[in-house]
Amino acid sequence: MKKSEDLFKQDLPSSKYNKSLQSLNLHPLSLISDMASQAHSNVEEGETKEMDIRSLSSSHHSVYNTQYLHKVGVPPKQNLFREFTATVKETFFHDDPLRPFKDQPRSRKFILGIQAIFPILEWARGYSWRKFRGDLIAGLTIASLCIPQDIGYAKLANLDPQYGLYSSLVPPLIYAFMGSSRDIAIGPVAVVSLLLGTMLSSEIDPIKNKAEYRRLAFTATFFAGITQATLGFLRLGFLIDFLSHAAIVGFMAGAAVTIALQQLKGLLGIKDFTKKSDIISVMNSVWGNVHHGWNWQTILIGVSFLSFLLFAKYIGKTNRKLFWVPAIAPLISVILSTFFVYITHAEKKGVQIVKQIEKGINPSSVDQIYFSGDYLLKGLKIGVVAGMIALTEAVAIGRTFASKKDYQINGNKEMVALGAMNVVGSMTSCYVATGSFSRSAVNYMAGCETAVSNIIMSCVVFLTLEFITPLFKYTPNAILASIIISAVIGLIDVPAAILIWKIDKFDFVACLGAFLGVVFSSVEIGLLIAVTISFAKILLQVTRPRTAILGKLPRTSVYRNIQQYPEAAKVPGLLIVRVDSAIYFSNSNYVKERILRWLMDEEELVKAACQPTIQFLIVEMSPVTDIDTSGIHALEELHRSLGKKGVQLILANPGPTVIDKLHASDFANLIAEDRIFLTVSDAVSSCSPKLVEEV
Amino acid sequence: MKKSEDLFKQDLPSSKYNKSLQSLNLHPLSLISDMASQAHSNVEEGETKEMDIRSLSSSHHSVYNTQYLHKVGVPPKQNLFREFTATVKETFFHDDPLRPFKDQPRSRKFILGIQAIFPILEWARGYSWRKFRGDLIAGLTIASLCIPQDIGYAKLANLDPQYGLYSSLVPPLIYAFMGSSRDIAIGPVAVVSLLLGTMLSSEIDPIKNKAEYRRLAFTATFFAGITQATLGFLRLGFLIDFLSHAAIVGFMAGAAVTIALQQLKGLLGIKDFTKKSDIISVMNSVWGNVHHGWNWQTILIGVSFLSFLLFAKYIGKTNRKLFWVPAIAPLISVILSTFFVYITHAEKKGVQIVKQIEKGINPSSVDQIYFSGDYLLKGLKIGVVAGMIALTEAVAIGRTFASKKDYQINGNKEMVALGAMNVVGSMTSCYVATGSFSRSAVNYMAGCETAVSNIIMSCVVFLTLEFITPLFKYTPNAILASIIISAVIGLIDVPAAILIWKIDKFDFVACLGAFLGVVFSSVEIGLLIAVTISFAKILLQVTRPRTAILGKLPRTSVYRNIQQYPEAAKVPGLLIVRVDSAIYFSNSNYVKERILRWLMDEEELVKAACQPTIQFLIVEMSPVTDIDTSGIHALEELHRSLGKKGVQLILANPGPTVIDKLHASDFANLIAEDRIFLTVSDAVSSCSPKLVEEV
Repeated sequence: MKKSEDLFKQDLPSSKYNKSLQSLNLHPLSLISDMASQAHSNVEEGETKEMDIRSLSSSHHSVYNTQYLHKVGVPPKQNLFREFTATVKETFFHDDPLRPFKDQPRSRKFILGIQAIFPILEWARGYSWRKFRGDLIAGLTIASLCIPQDIGYAKLANLDPQYGLYSSLVPPLIYAFMGSSRDIAIGPVAVVSLLLGTMLSSEIDPIKNKAEYRRLAFTATFFAGITQATLGFLRLGFLIDFLSHAAIVGFMAGAAVTIALQQLKGLLGIKDFTKKSDIISVMNSVWGNVHHGWNWQTILIGVSFLSFLLFAKYIGKTNRKLFWVPAIAPLISVILSTFFVYITHAEKKGVQIVKQIEKGINPSSVDQIYFSGDYLLKGLKIGVVAGMIALTEAVAIGRTFASKKDYQINGNKEMVALGAMNVVGSMTSCYVATGSFSRSAVNYMAGCETAVSNIIMSCVVFLTLEFITPLFKYTPNAILASIIISAVIGLIDVPAAILIWKIDKFDFVACLGAFLGVVFSSVEIGLLIAVTISFAKILLQVTRPRTAILGKLPRTSVYRNIQQYPEAAKVPGLLIVRVDSAIYFSNSNYVKERILRWLMDEEELVKAACQPTIQFLIVEMSPVTDIDTSGIHALEELHRSLGKKGVQLILANPGPTVIDKLHASDFANLIAEDRIFLTVSDAVSSCSPKLVEEV
Repeated sequence: MKKSEDLFKQDLPSSKYNKSLQSLNLHPLSLISDMASQAHSNVEEGETKEMDIRSLSSSHHSVYNTQYLHKVGVPPKQNLFREFTATVKETFFHDDPLRPFKDQPRSRKFILGIQAIFPILEWARGYSWRKFRGDLIAGLTIASLCIPQDIGYAKLANLDPQYGLYSSLVPPLIYAFMGSSRDIAIGPVAVVSLLLGTMLSSEIDPIKNKAEYRRLAFTATFFAGITQATLGFLRLGFLIDFLSHAAIVGFMAGAAVTIALQQLKGLLGIKDFTKKSDIISVMNSVWGNVHHGWNWQTILIGVSFLSFLLFAKYIGKTNRKLFWVPAIAPLISVILSTFFVYITHAEKKGVQIVKQIEKGINPSSVDQIYFSGDYLLKGLKIGVVAGMIALTEAVAIGRTFASKKDYQINGNKEMVALGAMNVVGSMTSCYVATGSFSRSAVNYMAGCETAVSNIIMSCVVFLTLEFITPLFKYTPNAILASIIISAVIGLIDVPAAILIWKIDKFDFVACLGAFLGVVFSSVEIGLLIAVTISFAKILLQVTRPRTAILGKLPRTSVYRNIQQYPEAAKVPGLLIVRVDSAIYFSNSNYVKERILRWLMDEEELVKAACQPTIQFLIVEMSPVTDIDTSGIHALEELHRSLGKKGVQLILANPGPTVIDKLHASDFANLIAEDRIFLTVSDAVSSCSPKLVEEV
């Protein structure tokens, strides 16, 4: 300790000359490089590097080493209120939602406000016949896809088939007025239907207490909408980002497998089927019924149409222009099979059919929502979960297509729109609707231009409910099952899983965990696993940040991780450690101990190789974006431990927040300000002469 | 997009000459600097900077700009198993606990293993009479402090006074054999006693069901020990780091205020006192009893001895050598006041006394622990919370004093020791014991050398229990109250709170939240607030990382945050953004949008000033320590959005993990590998000539 401090003092007297130069802002080095840059024609472009003055004259040794061009900057002290508003703004309003309102007259502000809530008022003015043609075709295409899907998805949620159609009538209309995505197709989706079905039926039996079950479904839908709108309104949209991409991939694939397995009931014509959704119960149910539960006529119809649907899908994939083939195949299957059952009376041979589907549009359901009693809380809980999942899906779709067409989606506004749509839906006999992956892709490929395609789809569903529903009476359940199977297969994204495996093994564990959780237990457990692993990853990141030993790249003044750059050479007598994270309470002890362990390892190496002992430890702080009280304590303890070992602590390039806090806590004075440098290279040059004198 | 790509291609043909040079490892620049460094005597020290070749000859323009000394290093592909073990090791075994076992014969390994569990076997061999003298004095001092405190703390936990003494007999002995701290003083502490008292009495009434209450206390103690040992054994010790320093400061101060307020009951001689611990109930209780509840004799005794204790504390603070004055003051108070009450028979005038205190040492309580039934789960829950808090306190103390004397504390081993001590304690009629702040400080100042001071203390407590306890019969409760008040005042650390305020406002909110939660509601609520705010801070950090615009420091090749260094100048036609965090699913969207917003802001500025438009966006990746699938997607989307605007994306200095993943995901090929540079300065020089040609 004492020795190295003495070494420091030795240099101080000789720097008098430099100080007088500096006061005139005339540094020997700056003079030279100023001349050099003046000689150069383009000053801005002039990459005048610090030249090694010692190669010009080695007598200037200490001159160069004690004075540097730039000191570490301390940002100007900020007003507390300003600092606070800046943080709040960056956290909740980073997209600057009020930017267009700035410097506008009051009437204009009012119009802009209305337009912010109903974007249709903005884009409708530029609407044209050309755009309408695109929307019309897209709307008709997604309508033909959604009608059979809706009937099937309603069954997943244990609701009567018409509720699926209801949910494709009202919510898309509301969304068209309030939403900002141009490509999303709104309606019931497989995963949310399954989730809702599982969670609701664990509270109320959907067959015995049909009416109460339905009421709870509307209650959950209401609170799903409230959750979504609240998240958007409070600008907490970033919360859904905590479900990582990897977890979603696994969860979706798991849900798809679960849904597909449950469809075996319809596809094989099994009457006595388990209510559990895990793969083991389902498989027991399927094989337990193999002798007297399977119905060959049902299987024949189901498997042949499933083959047809999968073939249509294959065609759509190989030739992008034929995207409409898989889009209308479900409707064709429904028409053909219904007609076939009707003329052959296959329903009398054990082929199960839809039987009954209510005619007419959505009845009101305002008075059905539980606003009090036991079911209020249960509905709230289910609604929050279903609402979040629906939101995740819709926002992911919105972002994907917005990025493809290069327009901006306002996440928080979008959530308010989705929430409003579900709240209105819950009052008009709809269950949770959201953006559908498969239908949105068809919408996009069919050339939709605006949300008008959703209005077209809604109109077609309206006509269907008013006039055509009785015709669905003879539609066999096996067809609905094969339509659902062919739809959910698209949710199993194997290439994405492979990419995740390649990029990040931990992410893959999250993905696999979510998948297995859903398949072997239930959607809720899968979701829980996904969220837990996602959080664990974040916590791991802040608890065990990376550290690296730096070395000097030959013939440069650049210091880099010696593991990444094997050519980087350590500087004898010095250890340069970079800490790759903010130093917070969660990792301050680890960081301190890790640095001391690096030093211990290095000292052993040095001893073995009979090199000069370590006298300086330089901590490169560039990636340390912030530090808190615990972090400062850790640095103090590090400084003390190093002092006892006779090693000098030196800091390089602390950021604005860090240097501010180092000063506030007086740590900057403790280690002496002249041991904080702008770059590692400056820090190294400050140590080198002392090392030389020592040797 | 197209334009800037063309610009890139223009340069490629001219680099043929360089390639041939490079294949020989002969770069025009490296030749020059090699010569320069050979000319210099000390090669290691030679800080040969990259010189601006253009100042030598501007005709070499494109030569300089397309070839750089070093490429971004891609670390060698790691074996999956190796990568996995490395991560596990760094997460759970970063202290390398098996290091001393390496390359040892089997018998030695066995001895080392035993020593690892019982460190006493290691340090006892070097024990000397000189050390014993220190330990003896320290042990006697802390014993004189602990006896009156223990009796008081037992009352905080709603237990009979002897249980406090029991807990200072067995646990310190166990700790002395297994613990690794030399300075910690083990026994019951105020905050844990209060926490236990509050949580237990919300389950069982401590007066009506005394026996069951005590059984639940032992059950909770047992599970507290199990929790501590398990955390240590599974090497999950880092979990306690999630309670931030700031939160602990607030929590401790709040608990101290709560405890002090509750002592008003004893100090004022109030019989009818509230059971709630929040300040409002307590104050109501105190002032509601002002007319017929207060007892002036009690107040006289209490206040005069409290003044004496506080005065002793003041003496100890002003003169560090007189540390023993406050340490023995409590015992003196007890002796004096007991004698006084005995001769004046003040107990007949309403002065409440201890009345009864069991003689003899700890009875067994193995059969009292609930191993089944309802109370098992309740005891488990209370035990986990109390165990974690006790652990936090003990580990903080251990670390503080270890750092003062510069020895290492092994956190996980320490937890196993504390856990074992509480498990044994729960079977010998002790409640949760841990390290005490005040007694450990006295222990340290009295010159303790090893854990033998704990053994001495334990012996004194043994003698007390065997022979002296009946004498405590006449000790007035008011004295115990004043001893507790004077002890807990030390837990209110105002300077620490001020420092927290100075360093980090968010930390201060956590501190204040915990304080107010404890004072106005209960210890549990305060704890919950502290943990929640601590977590919120971590989540905020990973959700909204900082970004900064970089500029070039004049006359260097160093690029720094322009807010921190106002002299740093932006390069026209370029925007350099630094992202200050790993890019994960939780922030990938924010990072992308924030960068685009920086670009938008900059473009507006540039337009207003009629400067050249932005053609290149350089993202400085040095602080980006990791990236996941969502992060890669965000970069892809950023690349696409920029492409549509005709802005070229360039990356500078990605770390080893990041460059690895950029390659694995093919993003490196997407943006073209020659747009990834070692330094910002390299990246800028690659853009500059193209900008010039444009203008």
